[in-house]
Amino acid sequence: MTAIRVCDVGPRDGLQNEPGEVPVEAKIALVEALAEAGVPEVEVGSFVDPRRVPRMADTPEVFRRVRRRSGTVYSALVPNLRGAEAALESSADKLAVFASASESFSRRNVNASIAETLARFAPVMELASSRRVPVRAYLSCAFGCPDEGAISPSVVARLSGELLSMGAAEVDVSDTIGVAVPRDVEAVLDAIGPVVPRERTVMHFHDTRGTAVANAWTAIRGGVTILDACCGGLGGCPFAPGATGNLATEDLLYLCERSGVSTGVRLDGVAAAASAISAVLGRRLPSRVLAAIVAAGDCGGPSVHRQDSGAGSSR
Amino acid sequence: MTAIRVCDVGPRDGLQNEPGEVPVEAKIALVEALAEAGVPEVEVGSFVDPRRVPRMADTPEVFRRVRRRSGTVYSALVPNLRGAEAALESSADKLAVFASASESFSRRNVNASIAETLARFAPVMELASSRRVPVRAYLSCAFGCPDEGAISPSVVARLSGELLSMGAAEVDVSDTIGVAVPRDVEAVLDAIGPVVPRERTVMHFHDTRGTAVANAWTAIRGGVTILDACCGGLGGCPFAPGATGNLATEDLLYLCERSGVSTGVRLDGVAAAASAISAVLGRRLPSRVLAAIVAAGDCGGPSVHRQDSGAGSSR
Repeated sequence: MTAIRVCDVGPRDGLQNEPGEVPVEAKIALVEALAEAGVPEVEVGSFVDPRRVPRMADTPEVFRRVRRRSGTVYSALVPNLRGAEAALESSADKLAVFASASESFSRRNVNASIAETLARFAPVMELASSRRVPVRAYLSCAFGCPDEGAISPSVVARLSGELLSMGAAEVDVSDTIGVAVPRDVEAVLDAIGPVVPRERTVMHFHDTRGTAVANAWTAIRGGVTILDACCGGLGGCPFAPGATGNLATEDLLYLCERSGVSTGVRLDGVAAAASAISAVLGRRLPSRVLAAIVAAGDCGGPSVHRQDSGAGSSR
Repeated sequence: MTAIRVCDVGPRDGLQNEPGEVPVEAKIALVEALAEAGVPEVEVGSFVDPRRVPRMADTPEVFRRVRRRSGTVYSALVPNLRGAEAALESSADKLAVFASASESFSRRNVNASIAETLARFAPVMELASSRRVPVRAYLSCAFGCPDEGAISPSVVARLSGELLSMGAAEVDVSDTIGVAVPRDVEAVLDAIGPVVPRERTVMHFHDTRGTAVANAWTAIRGGVTILDACCGGLGGCPFAPGATGNLATEDLLYLCERSGVSTGVRLDGVAAAASAISAVLGRRLPSRVLAAIVAAGDCGGPSVHRQDSGAGSSR
């Protein structure tokens, strides 16, 4: 039986662009509920300039107050050495750095060229290595850039190789603006295959154009065993407010459960976590599966779970 | 280059369960806008008991008043001979009958066994054949039933064969409650392969659990060349109010455009049609691509189309 590892990036990627305040208690509850549901890795927050990303200013407090579950990995995004030091002070189990496959997106997002960004990571990698803390390297806009349009898979492969050789434990190939289709996923997997071992390849999809589940399935079929997702489908593209967010963890879990792919995560636990944060944010979240669960509960109709069990039992 | 034929079932499957009144003018405008966008086949409405499906009571008027575009197929759902006669009186180009792959769903939905339903179709097929009007046969709940759970692909294959041998021009294998995942699509395609030629196989997905695009892609990869969709992602499952609706035409078109699959349909035209009906219904529709287009327009950010062109041009 195939198994994948789900990393829920909801507390970080899902909440970083929230327009309104999110109480720290709600974030702590979210991280704890996700871990409790069996999510093996949770990206808790980021140690970035609070003037640039005010929603992440309380990440140290979230780290300090979360009751940790044994075996769960609690990771943090860091932009530079200073952020890495702060994350390690908060006992983050894993660091994540953030490069872009698009030169113009890199300049727009972090005000630095790709080469400058990579140079900033060198001391982060060194520090992490000295503490035996693994580093994930995001490669954003790997499937397209709002400014440049298409990004060549060969560029993705070259940068992925550089990130690995700098010491990254895994490369997270990210469709930041949600343009990819399965054919793109196959092209990128083909291109990075000789450079990044599959077990160190992570993929990160946004559902901006409805293709996230299809892309995730293509990635799983292509041998990828680590996938990012956001409970409820939190998040979104900062360049398209109102558009749909990340691949929803619930949607990924449903796909996996019904496809015989093991995740070790309880869908109902994630849905409960998403419902709680949805209530805090005061709006519905975009996950289709979450909506189906809520609708079934509302109307007393057949539940997703009953349907799932029925379907599963006769396979 | 692969090409598929899109049938927009929005005016029928998308609107039949609307709780509120939909003005006949809005329906006419919708059908005309879809045809204008290049959709080759539009399911205009159904000739059913208006007490059971009040939203379709004006189907004769829609047929009478729609300005027809040469080359577009305007079809109608009919439950029995009487409905077929009425549809032909309205000059429907194609009839659609509706059987279920689930015995209990059949009884719940049309108060008849599967065998009784098929028997009702015989005179419909005869009449249609005498007028040289093709008949589509829906096979609902082909991937799962709210009561029975799993449906065996071999049952789908047997019933599909019966429908073809009765005279159906095509069988429309439908995931009525939106439970299927790509593996199910492959299993059904394998099972019906020896019975239904691929060019007479239609697939119809609902996005209730976020898998519709993934399933559509699996169907296209599996050789299916006719797919149903609903502009805006209209519709839904009558047993889960609030849950997501049909595969959105916009989402299917985006997938196809970026994957090099030709449809002959203009995405912006369908999105405009969906936006118009969305305004009439007074709510946002679930299509992800429609939301991205609206968001890009709202914020003046990079449009889906600019992104599309960029991505397409360098392929």
